[in-house]
Parts: sequence; structure tokens; C-alpha cells
Amino acid sequence: MKHKGILIVVSGFSGAGKGTLMKQLVHAYDNYALSVSMTTRNPRPGEEEGREYFFVTKEKFEEEIAKDGLVEYARYCDHYYGTPREYVERQLEKGKDVILEIEIQGALKIKEKFPTALLLFVMPPNAAELKKRLEGRGTESQEVISQRLKRASEEADGIEQYDFIVINDKLEECVQEMHALIHAAHCAPSRNEGLIETMRKELDALN
Amino acid sequence: MKHKGILIVVSGFSGAGKGTLMKQLVHAYDNYALSVSMTTRNPRPGEEEGREYFFVTKEKFEEEIAKDGLVEYARYCDHYYGTPREYVERQLEKGKDVILEIEIQGALKIKEKFPTALLLFVMPPNAAELKKRLEGRGTESQEVISQRLKRASEEADGIEQYDFIVINDKLEECVQEMHALIHAAHCAPSRNEGLIETMRKELDALN
Repeated sequence: MKHKGILIVVSGFSGAGKGTLMKQLVHAYDNYALSVSMTTRNPRPGEEEGREYFFVTKEKFEEEIAKDGLVEYARYCDHYYGTPREYVERQLEKGKDVILEIEIQGALKIKEKFPTALLLFVMPPNAAELKKRLEGRGTESQEVISQRLKRASEEADGIEQYDFIVINDKLEECVQEMHALIHAAHCAPSRNEGLIETMRKELDALN
Repeated sequence: MKHKGILIVVSGFSGAGKGTLMKQLVHAYDNYALSVSMTTRNPRPGEEEGREYFFVTKEKFEEEIAKDGLVEYARYCDHYYGTPREYVERQLEKGKDVILEIEIQGALKIKEKFPTALLLFVMPPNAAELKKRLEGRGTESQEVISQRLKRASEEADGIEQYDFIVINDKLEECVQEMHALIHAAHCAPSRNEGLIETMRKELDALN
């Protein structure tokens, strides 16, 4: 499967600022498309159909699984979450780099199906800052914050699986950094098979 | 072996402009150090001791081999070529990224000894441009140009071993691009073991 664009998987600790980063990135540069996940869980207050998620029934979701309509999916706490294939494929064909936010298991599944996918891991400059950001939201109980910190510890186990670490200290700089990393990824030989083949053919023709 | 800087190996077709690129890079940014190779061949007109090469006797070179004073070395056309270890190590310790120009066999040896080394392959935008540049030098016979084009074909076989392809179209842009790729490489988890370890420890302490 050859695409002009590449898939970019963004993972990272809850509270690292992934969502804001991705929105800013898509806003600042026109070569990105943001993938929206599908889920069977109910919308939370403020969430909008097609913006945070596509909200569907369990039946509809399982239909999508059956017809291979999802690039990857997983089940957490009795709810399905998945990445609709059609949007992703269409945008990649158009030459867009498609960004999706997903945790490590999904990231590794994506990497299997799309070997040229780029895996980015977003983290705050240090753990104290992470705690501060989680507390700063002011919306979560101490228990939830503790759970998230515990979860962060687990997620930190998988960092070596990612291509690049993105330190989110200052938002604007971090958006540029992310863009630069994605640009660099486009220069890897594995993402330039066509170019290499052309060069080889041209050289052979000259020899 | 842990260093603050990383080793950057630059390979690419003869005529791709590697030498100029590297000089410009070192000139434009202060985080680079250029490694100078040691050789037993005689200086050519215009070559300066310690600038193009360190010119030594066969005995001296073999002494260096014996005392493990070279990061890598090879023998071509009855002459030795190698990378002196001391300069490389000292600059890496200081936090400099050390750039060295070397062909693929040497590049792969370097990658074995320095797993965090970054391998860059420089190529012109297309083969016709490569031919034009080789002819444009005006210093080489048609036979030498043919040899170089043939050699380019062989070198092209190894492109997949490199981390990034650098297209040298416009020199100034290419220098910036190279700098950006090296910066990106610094964000790989394998080059941030200390950072990751610290983050893990901090998270564990909070949990």
C-alpha cells in the first residue's frame, strides 16, 4: 500500500497537552488532517459529534469491525474506540499527513499495518510539571489525578517504541518542533522508495 | 559509552556536494565539529595537512590501528584511510555533534560502534544533475566521470541503510535541512536515555 502522506500517531501522558498541540499543528500548517475516532461511549458535556468522536452504537461499531472499516480498534472499560479507515486512507491519498491520538497498543498496531507511520510521544519537561498540569485543570479529583500519574508511569514503559520524543514546554515552540520532526520523518529512505527507485533507474541509464 | 553529542556520518555520491555542505554546516552553526581523516596517501596539490587529511606514513597508521586509535579504517587502492578516535571522543564529550564523511562500509562500522550515530545520505535532485556536476568540475576526464557514475550506482544500493536522505538542490536550504534532520535525530528515544530514566524515576516518586 503506497500513500503520499504518512500516518502520525501521537501518544503521551494524559496532561502532556496532546490535544491542544494537535489542534494547533493542524491550524498552523495545511498539510495535516486530523483523524477523529469512533466510540461507543456516550458524549460528555461539551463534546460534539464528529469533533471529539463519532459516537455510534455497539451494533454499528461491530459492523465496522466486521467489514474492516477500522484501521485499529480497542476496548476499554466496556466501550469500543477505533479509527475509521476511510477518512484516513482518503487523506493519505491526497498527500495529507494524518494525525491521530492513540495509546501505545493502538500505536503499535498502526505501525504494523502502516510501516511508514511515525510514532510521536509527547511529554512535559518533567514529572512535577505533569502533576501541576493535571491539578491545574481543576476538574479532576485527587483520586483521578493519582490514577493518571500511575497510568503515566505505565505509559512511560513504552517510550522506546516511539520514533521521537516531543517535549511540550512552550506550546508554540512545541508545535514547530513537531512539524520539524514530521518533516524529518519524510526524509527517511523507507518513506522515499519511489525517489530511490527513480534515482537508481536514472543512474543505470547513464551507465 | 555515553556521549553528549552524536556522531553524524555523511555519505553520498561523488559530486553530490558533501564537502561543501559539511563546511557550510560547521560554519553556520556552532554545535558541530568536523572530523578529519588520517591517510597514508600523498597530499594532492592544494591539500593541507590537518584540513583535508592528516597525512601519515604506513608505519604510523598501523601503529594507530594496533593501539585502537581509530574509530574505523579501511584500505583502498593500497592506501589506508581512517578516523582518529581521540578527536571524535573529545568533541562528543564536549557535547559537539561530530560530522565525518565516509562511504557506506565505514558508515556501517561506525553505526556498530556508536549505535546512536546518525547516517545521512546526500544526493542531487536527479541523476542528470549529478552527471552535470561531475562534468562541470571540468577537472576530470570522461573516463573518471564514467567511473564515478558507475560508483554512484553501487553506492545507491546502500541508501536504505541510512537514516535520512538529504537532497542537495540549493546549498543554503540544504544546510538548514541537514541541521533540522540532525536536530530531529536528537529527539529519538535512543538518544535520550538519560531524560527517559529521569522521567521514570520522577513519576515513580510521585506515585
